[in-house]
Amino acid sequence: MPDLAERLRDAQAGDRRALARLLTDIEDGALVPSELGALIAAGRDAHLVGITGPPGSGKSTLVNALIAAWRSRGRRVGVIAVDPSSPMTGGAIMGDRIRMMDHHGDDGVFVRSMASRGALGGMAATTWLAAAALDAAGYDPVVIETVGAGQSEVEIATLAETTVVVEVPEMGDEVQAIKAGLLEIADVIVVNKGDRPGADRAARQLRAMLSTAGGRVSRPAPPVLVSIATAGDGVEPLREAIEAHRAGRTPEQVRTRAGELLRRAVATRAYERAARSADWAAAVTAVAERREDPFSAADRLLG
Amino acid sequence: MPDLAERLRDAQAGDRRALARLLTDIEDGALVPSELGALIAAGRDAHLVGITGPPGSGKSTLVNALIAAWRSRGRRVGVIAVDPSSPMTGGAIMGDRIRMMDHHGDDGVFVRSMASRGALGGMAATTWLAAAALDAAGYDPVVIETVGAGQSEVEIATLAETTVVVEVPEMGDEVQAIKAGLLEIADVIVVNKGDRPGADRAARQLRAMLSTAGGRVSRPAPPVLVSIATAGDGVEPLREAIEAHRAGRTPEQVRTRAGELLRRAVATRAYERAARSADWAAAVTAVAERREDPFSAADRLLG
Repeated sequence: MPDLAERLRDAQAGDRRALARLLTDIEDGALVPSELGALIAAGRDAHLVGITGPPGSGKSTLVNALIAAWRSRGRRVGVIAVDPSSPMTGGAIMGDRIRMMDHHGDDGVFVRSMASRGALGGMAATTWLAAAALDAAGYDPVVIETVGAGQSEVEIATLAETTVVVEVPEMGDEVQAIKAGLLEIADVIVVNKGDRPGADRAARQLRAMLSTAGGRVSRPAPPVLVSIATAGDGVEPLREAIEAHRAGRTPEQVRTRAGELLRRAVATRAYERAARSADWAAAVTAVAERREDPFSAADRLLG
Repeated sequence: MPDLAERLRDAQAGDRRALARLLTDIEDGALVPSELGALIAAGRDAHLVGITGPPGSGKSTLVNALIAAWRSRGRRVGVIAVDPSSPMTGGAIMGDRIRMMDHHGDDGVFVRSMASRGALGGMAATTWLAAAALDAAGYDPVVIETVGAGQSEVEIATLAETTVVVEVPEMGDEVQAIKAGLLEIADVIVVNKGDRPGADRAARQLRAMLSTAGGRVSRPAPPVLVSIATAGDGVEPLREAIEAHRAGRTPEQVRTRAGELLRRAVATRAYERAARSADWAAAVTAVAERREDPFSAADRLLG
């Protein structure tokens, strides 16, 4: 197979198939550590934007509208759509999502769907590396879109420099609980489907909730916007809020994000090493037979 | 503070406050490795049952009904409800969930809500240890209830020996995608709210989908049941299906689960060690300043 440097050079020269193959290599875990280092070094510091929210909030439509807003300003936009679907049924769903994108045929837009596949940590690492590849290939911003309703969007959000949480005006109790978890990670909040009854009231409630929340001492309350993605309403202010967030980032925020990335990388690498070690199979047996607890076995494997 | 052995002994003697404090210690990460080993060793091999499903599927009501079914057969039931809410707003939401439980005042039932708090890997480790504590205190089965709509329920599901996925008859497109991901991890599927139109049709569709799915070569298709949790309908067959799943488990399944537990423990422990090392702060700085990629830095920290 061609080496990374060649694929990267081709991708940077605009060869979309080379970029697609590079992303496949990343998904397959086919890059060796020195290649990963080269990939990161080739990055141009693209703005990594996470966009998440509960199912049905219109995230994909909003991402489409944002792409148009960036394209009209000459920006090349990369998108990674992280799909909670499985390999079993993933094809059709991902196909739908790709078809949904209005920007098919525009060389300034690159969209990649990735199935999460349920791998602990692995998805986050893969997503981050895929974003680094799009960065290296000249896309900026790089958008990571996730269906946010649990742990995954919290993980993915720590990858992004700017996390946009999409809400809708009305939702059931259990979804409200999910929303509360999402607010914690939001740098920008947008109430989409703003033509529905209660949109402005929902935005006001969110602002009130955030202004009294004690959990965000280290950060200012995020702006709360209203949009109607299907009509393009509110998309320009959203783009501006996203860019303003990056422009205003502090060294402490940059450092916190680096710490999260490093934490994730340590976890991923440690598992890869342990699973390759000669003692792995015996440790699994000991845990399976309840002769050893998993944490003690892990300590032994880590040496 | 009293040592683990004392709290565990009191918890095993029926002291609920001692058990509650033990769970708090686990959540706070206050147990040292040797104590963790003692906790695992005190386990009685309780059946660990994961129950997950999309928001609004009636999981909590179903868990309540299952508790009643187990109680009527003399089983002592532990429940860990993993909440996607944040520390910011978590109190009220968790309180609601606890109030929802019908079994308040029954010493044979112990319910604990835990906020997920967005910690990578940490939630899974904490959940597993909390389940081990309930096991050691004599609860069997131990139910782990999660709001399933992303990565978290996939992670949590790998902790449980038997994973029940709760569905509802009708749902939007994006939630369908989440359902597809959940089916992958299901050992038992139950279509709840069976009095709604289309419940039997939904069950038939799920059975057809599962019988043609190529992704589950290593496991038989899970049974698909229908329930009306609010009326208690279909709860006994569900309890039987859950127990039949454990009775039929293969050595290979036990081993796969042990491997997942070990993988998670390695990731958690490796991060804890790295973050304590003298080189951690410098590595974070190098990543923040883009002088080093996180994976190379992780390799260096792991030595």
